[in-house]
Amino acid sequence: MSQIIIHEVGPRDGLQYEAQGMPTPVKEALLRGIMATGVDIVQVGSFVNPEKVPQMADTDVLCKRLAGAKGSVLSGLVLNERGLERALACGVPMICMGVSASDTHSRKNTGMGTEEALRRIIPLARIALAAGRQVQVCVQSAFGCGFEGRVPEERVLAMVHAYLDAGLNMVSLADTAGHAHPEQIRRLFGAVFAMDPDNVHATVHCHDTYGLGMANVFAALEAGVTTFETSLGGLGGCPFTKVAAGNVATEDLVHSLRRTGLRTDIDLDRLVGLAKELSTFFARDLPGRVHRAGRVEY
Amino acid sequence: MSQIIIHEVGPRDGLQYEAQGMPTPVKEALLRGIMATGVDIVQVGSFVNPEKVPQMADTDVLCKRLAGAKGSVLSGLVLNERGLERALACGVPMICMGVSASDTHSRKNTGMGTEEALRRIIPLARIALAAGRQVQVCVQSAFGCGFEGRVPEERVLAMVHAYLDAGLNMVSLADTAGHAHPEQIRRLFGAVFAMDPDNVHATVHCHDTYGLGMANVFAALEAGVTTFETSLGGLGGCPFTKVAAGNVATEDLVHSLRRTGLRTDIDLDRLVGLAKELSTFFARDLPGRVHRAGRVEY
Repeated sequence: MSQIIIHEVGPRDGLQYEAQGMPTPVKEALLRGIMATGVDIVQVGSFVNPEKVPQMADTDVLCKRLAGAKGSVLSGLVLNERGLERALACGVPMICMGVSASDTHSRKNTGMGTEEALRRIIPLARIALAAGRQVQVCVQSAFGCGFEGRVPEERVLAMVHAYLDAGLNMVSLADTAGHAHPEQIRRLFGAVFAMDPDNVHATVHCHDTYGLGMANVFAALEAGVTTFETSLGGLGGCPFTKVAAGNVATEDLVHSLRRTGLRTDIDLDRLVGLAKELSTFFARDLPGRVHRAGRVEY
Repeated sequence: MSQIIIHEVGPRDGLQYEAQGMPTPVKEALLRGIMATGVDIVQVGSFVNPEKVPQMADTDVLCKRLAGAKGSVLSGLVLNERGLERALACGVPMICMGVSASDTHSRKNTGMGTEEALRRIIPLARIALAAGRQVQVCVQSAFGCGFEGRVPEERVLAMVHAYLDAGLNMVSLADTAGHAHPEQIRRLFGAVFAMDPDNVHATVHCHDTYGLGMANVFAALEAGVTTFETSLGGLGGCPFTKVAAGNVATEDLVHSLRRTGLRTDIDLDRLVGLAKELSTFFARDLPGRVHRAGRVEY
């Protein structure tokens, strides 16, 4: 079995939509803390318009400051040309790009429907690849959409096909609104792996809106998914998709992987400490469990 | 595939240890509300010492008042002779009994170690069976214990064997402390079904202490478990086992089963309304998701 990869996306998906901004030095300390836990990848932020999303305005400077520091690989989210230019300029080694399978969600995020957004993102992804970056391409709202409801599976699979055809084999399916259920996860990832079994590296990104976040993560694990995007404390949620709750909590997944022996080298105590700090910073309970309950010691 | 059975245990496992008692008329309205949702079984309470657990002192009177009312089958929890007498006297049609696989937990709950408790509960269960009641026997702390940590699987399976030998084929494995993980759920239930494949009716009872409650429920579903003990709003948790968090939320499971077509006849809107009432009654957020997030309408 391949190594399980944890991609911490809290600093992007968690902080992006919080009303309370995090000062850059606090965020830098958080990122350095995460990098020291042994988590494989950490998403520093997104390269979006700082006027629209001021919480992400320091993504470039943070990527530069953290470049070369030991620990996790850094990633950043790119949604358009301007974002790609910034990502390339600041040297972030992994670039994540995405298109929503829901036309409505895609228009709200980018002003373009799915097809147009896909036509524009694929050449950008190939530029990033040619520039020597790791490139992950995502289908957002792959399992349903807060605006449109059901998202046809063939639509999602056609997008994955377009990615693979373009030589983009790190593919993420994101359950942006939290609509997925385990059966659907298994079916859709099964179809993705069937397209190119030896070549696809699959990632899942789950939100816990309806209580199925972790059940979906385990279904994905069984289906052969090896990379999991999670967030410290279970922070997260996207207001553009109505009621999406937080991501699956990084420390909860790491705790469970430790107990089953699937991944034992990540510093759970540090993760728990960071999740508690985040909870203190936002002065509210976060949905993750392990940072509140402690850990099972066997 | 067999029909999925939902056993609502919130009025027992949820209310039992809440510091704030629920007045009998409020509890009766809650129980009648649950009975009208189409949930298969509802646990009215436990027949324990009312001086030790005053929240459960009205179990007998509630069973009598609700006897014959339409809707869910009523159940009650029995831990000793005196409890069985009361359960038989008040006519509750389903009697649940249990013994903890952890000696320490068993002693704290009953004053007896596991072996002695098992020797005493089995004859009582047979009396209840002979009296025409449905009888479910449980292994508590079947997947780990807040006091003892690991619970040997052979110990749990020996208890199940003793139950089956005594003609008690409705068997529940309870993850009292929330230590279970999906792999363990599949392994242990696989072993239980292997003992007597045509005759065992298996139930699972999961707590979400470490974020795996729903993942464990889905693992149990795949393993062939057909009865699920859940609680409205995810209320619950046992202070005797340190940090156990709430049960898996009934409305979250019902929401998911509706979407996959596994169970579509339970009134989700009513369940959600009741979970919200519970949250209002206890003046705090409950861990369940669907009663806060709404539902996916497809």
